[in-house]
Amino acid sequence: MQTPEQYIEQIGQNARAAALVWGVADAARKNAVLKELSARIRSGVEKIIAANQKDLDAGKAAGLSAALIDRLTLNPERIEKMAQRVDQVAALPDPVGEQLERVVRPNGLVIRKVRVPIGVIGVIYESRPNVTVDCAALCLKSGNAAILRGGKEAIHSNAILAQLIRESLQACGETPDAVQWINTPDRAVMAAMLKADQYIHCIIPRGGEGLIRFVAENARMPVIKHYNGVCSLYLDKDADAAMSVQIALNAKTQRPGVCNAIENLVVHEDAAQTLLPVVAQALVEKNVQLRADERAAAILKAAALPFVPAQEADWGTEYLDLVLSVKIADSLEEAVAFINRYDSAHSEAIVTNNPEAARIFQTTVDAAAVFWNASTRFNDGFEFGLGAEIGISTDRLHARGPVGLRELCSYKYLVDGTGQVRN
Amino acid sequence: MQTPEQYIEQIGQNARAAALVWGVADAARKNAVLKELSARIRSGVEKIIAANQKDLDAGKAAGLSAALIDRLTLNPERIEKMAQRVDQVAALPDPVGEQLERVVRPNGLVIRKVRVPIGVIGVIYESRPNVTVDCAALCLKSGNAAILRGGKEAIHSNAILAQLIRESLQACGETPDAVQWINTPDRAVMAAMLKADQYIHCIIPRGGEGLIRFVAENARMPVIKHYNGVCSLYLDKDADAAMSVQIALNAKTQRPGVCNAIENLVVHEDAAQTLLPVVAQALVEKNVQLRADERAAAILKAAALPFVPAQEADWGTEYLDLVLSVKIADSLEEAVAFINRYDSAHSEAIVTNNPEAARIFQTTVDAAAVFWNASTRFNDGFEFGLGAEIGISTDRLHARGPVGLRELCSYKYLVDGTGQVRN
Repeated sequence: MQTPEQYIEQIGQNARAAALVWGVADAARKNAVLKELSARIRSGVEKIIAANQKDLDAGKAAGLSAALIDRLTLNPERIEKMAQRVDQVAALPDPVGEQLERVVRPNGLVIRKVRVPIGVIGVIYESRPNVTVDCAALCLKSGNAAILRGGKEAIHSNAILAQLIRESLQACGETPDAVQWINTPDRAVMAAMLKADQYIHCIIPRGGEGLIRFVAENARMPVIKHYNGVCSLYLDKDADAAMSVQIALNAKTQRPGVCNAIENLVVHEDAAQTLLPVVAQALVEKNVQLRADERAAAILKAAALPFVPAQEADWGTEYLDLVLSVKIADSLEEAVAFINRYDSAHSEAIVTNNPEAARIFQTTVDAAAVFWNASTRFNDGFEFGLGAEIGISTDRLHARGPVGLRELCSYKYLVDGTGQVRN
Repeated sequence: MQTPEQYIEQIGQNARAAALVWGVADAARKNAVLKELSARIRSGVEKIIAANQKDLDAGKAAGLSAALIDRLTLNPERIEKMAQRVDQVAALPDPVGEQLERVVRPNGLVIRKVRVPIGVIGVIYESRPNVTVDCAALCLKSGNAAILRGGKEAIHSNAILAQLIRESLQACGETPDAVQWINTPDRAVMAAMLKADQYIHCIIPRGGEGLIRFVAENARMPVIKHYNGVCSLYLDKDADAAMSVQIALNAKTQRPGVCNAIENLVVHEDAAQTLLPVVAQALVEKNVQLRADERAAAILKAAALPFVPAQEADWGTEYLDLVLSVKIADSLEEAVAFINRYDSAHSEAIVTNNPEAARIFQTTVDAAAVFWNASTRFNDGFEFGLGAEIGISTDRLHARGPVGLRELCSYKYLVDGTGQVRN
């Protein structure tokens, strides 16, 4: 009987060996595996659904909520989408090998900085089984070996998907250990994984804040984190009214449950009397509950619009729902200070016709993405043109904002000399 | 009486506020502070030496080793060098604000990726007081706020240096909290610092492996690590003999106590009979002890050169001394496998006249810097043209290899629209 540490030691050694081989595979080899995988997913729909049914039965027996059961469910349509996403990753350019810089030093050394895979990436995720395939595809295309650890609710679904991935590697003559799947929900194994920094170069947690915090506090290796998104839209005194309505509606209501939706609306005092009633009216019509500070409350009251008073705790809350806090700011500077104090440095936007105000806002707001006259909802790998993403990083090191294939890479220096030695 | 958590909370809030202001300072403001600092260091030599004397007296009373006392010692020459390094940092280009990418999306959004400071950087270091000034200068020039925590042996020296830094900021009309210094050696304060990920965006430990490991295991925020350097020089079958001697000598003996010196010499079997005796002879003349595998031992014995047999533990050991392990490899591939197994992915070199062998070596060796016909000793921020460095990262995320001003930065996306919303 292996201990969790022995199990992870074995997995880690396999991954390291696979990473050294897979990391130098060219684009043709990588794409061949991905095409093989999408084909095997399509031809494997029946067995995927059968495995998934076991998870659904167990989940219902265990009393999982309807929302969790929905996340867990795979059907032919969702499986086809999974295969399509693998094909999309295959179609993306190979990030590995690109020359990032080249300098010739006075002593004649030629130094090239080139993009290489990170090495071994661990992914720890919760109940959505599609994460198994999505993350494997992104890690494979970026030349990394992956160690996947999913939630126990999806264990049968993940097992069959991991098997299809490994079969695809093998069918193409590649090492199946480029993707390994942790076949136990034992938390001691996850804990051992987080300590194995001699084998795993980076951990990506995908799930709720509790999971991410657990990983960040226990991992010895770097973690690419995706904490919550407390985002604001600021309507400047020179904001266009129609654009303000359109962007506020989009940023709050187009998909309220995601990280780049807004939670706070900040309005410049000079514009509030005219702007806020119009914007608020449109939001209220979309069933948005407004939580107003004192000055906003007075304006909403005068306009006979419904609201509740905002509490201090509202400003930093990610509602992920049709709820929006509203604050009046005396100045652009006060708006920026509010955002830098309460928001999570994720996605922020200003609506203004004044380019100077936009420039100040973009420079002084400390966030991964700062939008001028556009919705915060665009902070996304697809919308930024990166192709697929593994998440949106709220870290400042390595990757900030959307994490695509390039962000799953590191770099190395190749230095060519003619016998140079150091003095 | 404050708890360690309250103390760090206050320091963290100050740092965050300072980072927002200092992070948008232009190069002129930053350089003015650095010039002020180098002037104050020069005019403060006497009080720096007086403070340092207190540390030296305490250190001698506590029985510190001669080596530690030497590291701790500041004299007029060392203080002048410290001031010169500050001037050198002032002379480096400002990394902040540079546009890294610009794309125009089909929907008209203009997305710019620009370099910005990381925010708040914590530095935890040991007994060299010059680290206080070196790290402060690099953090200030890269627009970051710094929280410095030095070793207790240097507490008086660090106190006066931190005071000079803060006085320089104040004299230039800037917030002194851009650099804060932890005025207590209490380890509970350091522990609280490592948990304060809401304020500190990154920790850089500077010191021995024990310190780095402690920080990596306890920090909740990203850590830029500088673990040890187990580096190899590989002499290929097509290696030039004179160049092999020159590079082996330089990489081992020019400064054996540093991370980019070599610990292993790997020689291709086909070249070993002719090459190894010549290279070994030169090393032995420089008092290098050779630890040989069986085949190398036979060759050294035949050449009447001194050696000791290598043990398994030798291959992964960072001697930091005039000791070198010697291994014979059957092939380039075996040499690469050996390096990828035992070395610490820091700096590796091949000597060969065969460009194809060099290309394979550089591609398949997994290390921060891979040299062809040049000494590993060049893996260094100055030698790479980055200017000053804060260390050489053995991580693969964010920064790999020398960490200069650019590596002390993050980026953000500035997105300009004309009212775009997401479908």
